[in-house]
Amino acid sequence: MNDKNNYSKFDSDKLSEMARRHLWMHFTRLSSYNEAEIPIMVKGEGGYVWDSHGKRYIDGLAGLFVVQAGHGRHELAEAAAKQASELAYFPIWSYAHAPAIELAERLASLTPGDLNRVFFTTGGGEAVETAFKLARQYFKLTGKPKKTKVISRNISYHGTTMGALSITGLAGIKADFEPLIPGTFKVANTNRYRCVDCANSPACTLHCADDIERMINYEGADTIAAVFLEPVQNAGGCFTPPDGYFDRVREICDKYDVLLVADEVICGFGRLGHYFGSQKYNFVPDMITVAKGMTSGYSPIGALIASDRIIEPYLKETNTFLHGFTFAGHPVSSAVALANLDIFERENLLGNVLANEGYFRESLEGLRDISIVGDIRGTGYFYGIELVKDRSSKETFSDDESERLLRGLLTPRLFEEGLICRADDRGDPVIQLSPPLVIGRSEIDDIVGILRGVLSEAAALI
Amino acid sequence: MNDKNNYSKFDSDKLSEMARRHLWMHFTRLSSYNEAEIPIMVKGEGGYVWDSHGKRYIDGLAGLFVVQAGHGRHELAEAAAKQASELAYFPIWSYAHAPAIELAERLASLTPGDLNRVFFTTGGGEAVETAFKLARQYFKLTGKPKKTKVISRNISYHGTTMGALSITGLAGIKADFEPLIPGTFKVANTNRYRCVDCANSPACTLHCADDIERMINYEGADTIAAVFLEPVQNAGGCFTPPDGYFDRVREICDKYDVLLVADEVICGFGRLGHYFGSQKYNFVPDMITVAKGMTSGYSPIGALIASDRIIEPYLKETNTFLHGFTFAGHPVSSAVALANLDIFERENLLGNVLANEGYFRESLEGLRDISIVGDIRGTGYFYGIELVKDRSSKETFSDDESERLLRGLLTPRLFEEGLICRADDRGDPVIQLSPPLVIGRSEIDDIVGILRGVLSEAAALI
Repeated sequence: MNDKNNYSKFDSDKLSEMARRHLWMHFTRLSSYNEAEIPIMVKGEGGYVWDSHGKRYIDGLAGLFVVQAGHGRHELAEAAAKQASELAYFPIWSYAHAPAIELAERLASLTPGDLNRVFFTTGGGEAVETAFKLARQYFKLTGKPKKTKVISRNISYHGTTMGALSITGLAGIKADFEPLIPGTFKVANTNRYRCVDCANSPACTLHCADDIERMINYEGADTIAAVFLEPVQNAGGCFTPPDGYFDRVREICDKYDVLLVADEVICGFGRLGHYFGSQKYNFVPDMITVAKGMTSGYSPIGALIASDRIIEPYLKETNTFLHGFTFAGHPVSSAVALANLDIFERENLLGNVLANEGYFRESLEGLRDISIVGDIRGTGYFYGIELVKDRSSKETFSDDESERLLRGLLTPRLFEEGLICRADDRGDPVIQLSPPLVIGRSEIDDIVGILRGVLSEAAALI
Repeated sequence: MNDKNNYSKFDSDKLSEMARRHLWMHFTRLSSYNEAEIPIMVKGEGGYVWDSHGKRYIDGLAGLFVVQAGHGRHELAEAAAKQASELAYFPIWSYAHAPAIELAERLASLTPGDLNRVFFTTGGGEAVETAFKLARQYFKLTGKPKKTKVISRNISYHGTTMGALSITGLAGIKADFEPLIPGTFKVANTNRYRCVDCANSPACTLHCADDIERMINYEGADTIAAVFLEPVQNAGGCFTPPDGYFDRVREICDKYDVLLVADEVICGFGRLGHYFGSQKYNFVPDMITVAKGMTSGYSPIGALIASDRIIEPYLKETNTFLHGFTFAGHPVSSAVALANLDIFERENLLGNVLANEGYFRESLEGLRDISIVGDIRGTGYFYGIELVKDRSSKETFSDDESERLLRGLLTPRLFEEGLICRADDRGDPVIQLSPPLVIGRSEIDDIVGILRGVLSEAAALI
């Protein structure tokens, strides 16, 4: 039996050694830490976190697109403790409890259209799995049993469990785990910086939206159940939709009786300045998946929110969605989500994003004078900076160059300078920013200042 | 915007109406509640929970095989609040935090063999997904890329995300969601009450274990990556392994280089009187999946625990397990898991199970005089009672009879009498018991007393 008190809590060397021996970090090349110390975070407050050496960082990623209300919120800790003392756990399998019911109603009051029914999960991937399974069963119950296939976009990320992974459009994180779920097809994303389809047109032709119709016709509309789209696609670096994109997608889905699933795991809860990204782009999906920002990350929860149309066959006869998760709609997580929404309202977090998104965007645009900055894209508190070798030709870096640039240089230097963000090459090399929604112009200045310094260094070395 | 204070918290009618409109309960036939009130739980203490009318129930299922340390543990609520105030959320993607590191080390100290490496998840299904993906990639990294298929048992439940669902052996909860992951095969379970394979032998022949070898040979050993088994299979009603079963399975897995995954989501954390069910049956798996009892349900977490052999290729070069979950190893959940293990030690919960399991078993055996009681099986604090139409022939109930018996009679009557347990027919009709590990003989007497009354009523009506 290990005595957990035989080391000082923030003894970095000891903790790093224990982590090196026992912890399997996610999406992490473990050999990077065979010798290097593992960064250990110990404290958070507002837009900042501190490591085990007492060094402070601006949390430019809100943990992992999660900590909307900022770190160190005692009222969320208290909401958790209060619920845990009353009823810490009970399943929502045939029973219910007050916090899940209250949260379901409150979510329904915030969603667009008639998305009134909440199937809770423990996180985002499970919400995507739930939408996938529900889409398949819904059409069996409504007389279109061949509708089992789903469509999503190239370079998109929808989760890592095998159903969600099948919907994910990142070939590199799938290949070693195949074969996956049959019948998952990929279409164009909305990467306007590198759009080849409209390259010879004076303006966007919405070819990317029409690609969904093309795929539906390739596969046969009577076999397609759903389309999964993020309002702004995260992987690849904040691909925003062109004007009219979601109108066109909604039209296509209606035409072929295909369900439109908005994956709002990242865009939901204020990331784009609205409760849901669908509201920013003014469309009503048939289902919405959420997680992450729903509790500002203080306790795990997610949900699939479905329209009245989807629930309708399930209210009749013995029809049952035989699906569930033990910890879904956890009483403590639900109570924390309610308290988190109280903060959203009381402090007008959406208003803070809307008031500062223009300043954030302009400040980042100022980095365009650095030679490796190819594109700045995004909206709200959600931006990507695409790095290029040659700005005029938009030539990107080779895999080796990208490895040296991102892993060898930017990631460690940004961290040294006290900025947590993501330097990523799941698509082309990008730096991603997604800070807590509570930060203001001074923190934005700090983020952009650090980026300017480190990107300039990198540009000089390339 | 909904005003969450416009109803009294425990206003049952209002909450039930809100739930009926907005909450999608899991694995639940919603039409059952079109008129009936939805049972709403509001408080827990030790082995008991209370509904919104103030009525008390013995929690004979520990929520959902979860609440090992019992309800109402203020120290777990305080552990959650303390961690949430310091650092409520940070990902373990490239970073680490103290509670996840401490918990990883502590789990490793409790596991059998050299299962020293912890990949955290948010729950059990994700742990199974992780094991499945890891098994597939592990063999690619070690020169056996064709090993992608997995084997599990008939009637087994391993989760509802599509990878875990593919491993699940319950055809009825899969059909509407197919096609699922190719390459998942089912073998015999250890239902000794209805074993046809050894029916003509004087004793168990371990045919059920040999069925795994048969399947490996059918499919080709060079295509099989892993076998998934619960130490005691939950679905179907607590199928315990015959003597020698896991020795034989371990031998088969070694012979064909197939990874043995012990799914301990239910059996782990004391359910069988040991930290892990593998320890009770004295075998060392290559991977263990856990969740549920790990925090006694006070906060969502799960894990895949892997042996040193499995992690080894991942410590070299650029090999990376490109897999992860945002909320996995959540700081608050990890802190709660550590405090939960403190309770296990301080109060000797394993000892309580070992001291009372014989009494529990004997008390249940006393029900065999009721004509519909066909079999009593299980161990530790984990039992199933199989109900039959005719005890001598072991004839089971038809689907219609089972529907009337379980849903029409037993479920409502047991609930009325104040016992929460599961009356289930995913296999043959069974009643399942899995109470908090803190209960003693007096609560066992109450459980068995309620069962005697209600089963006798049912027997008289059949």
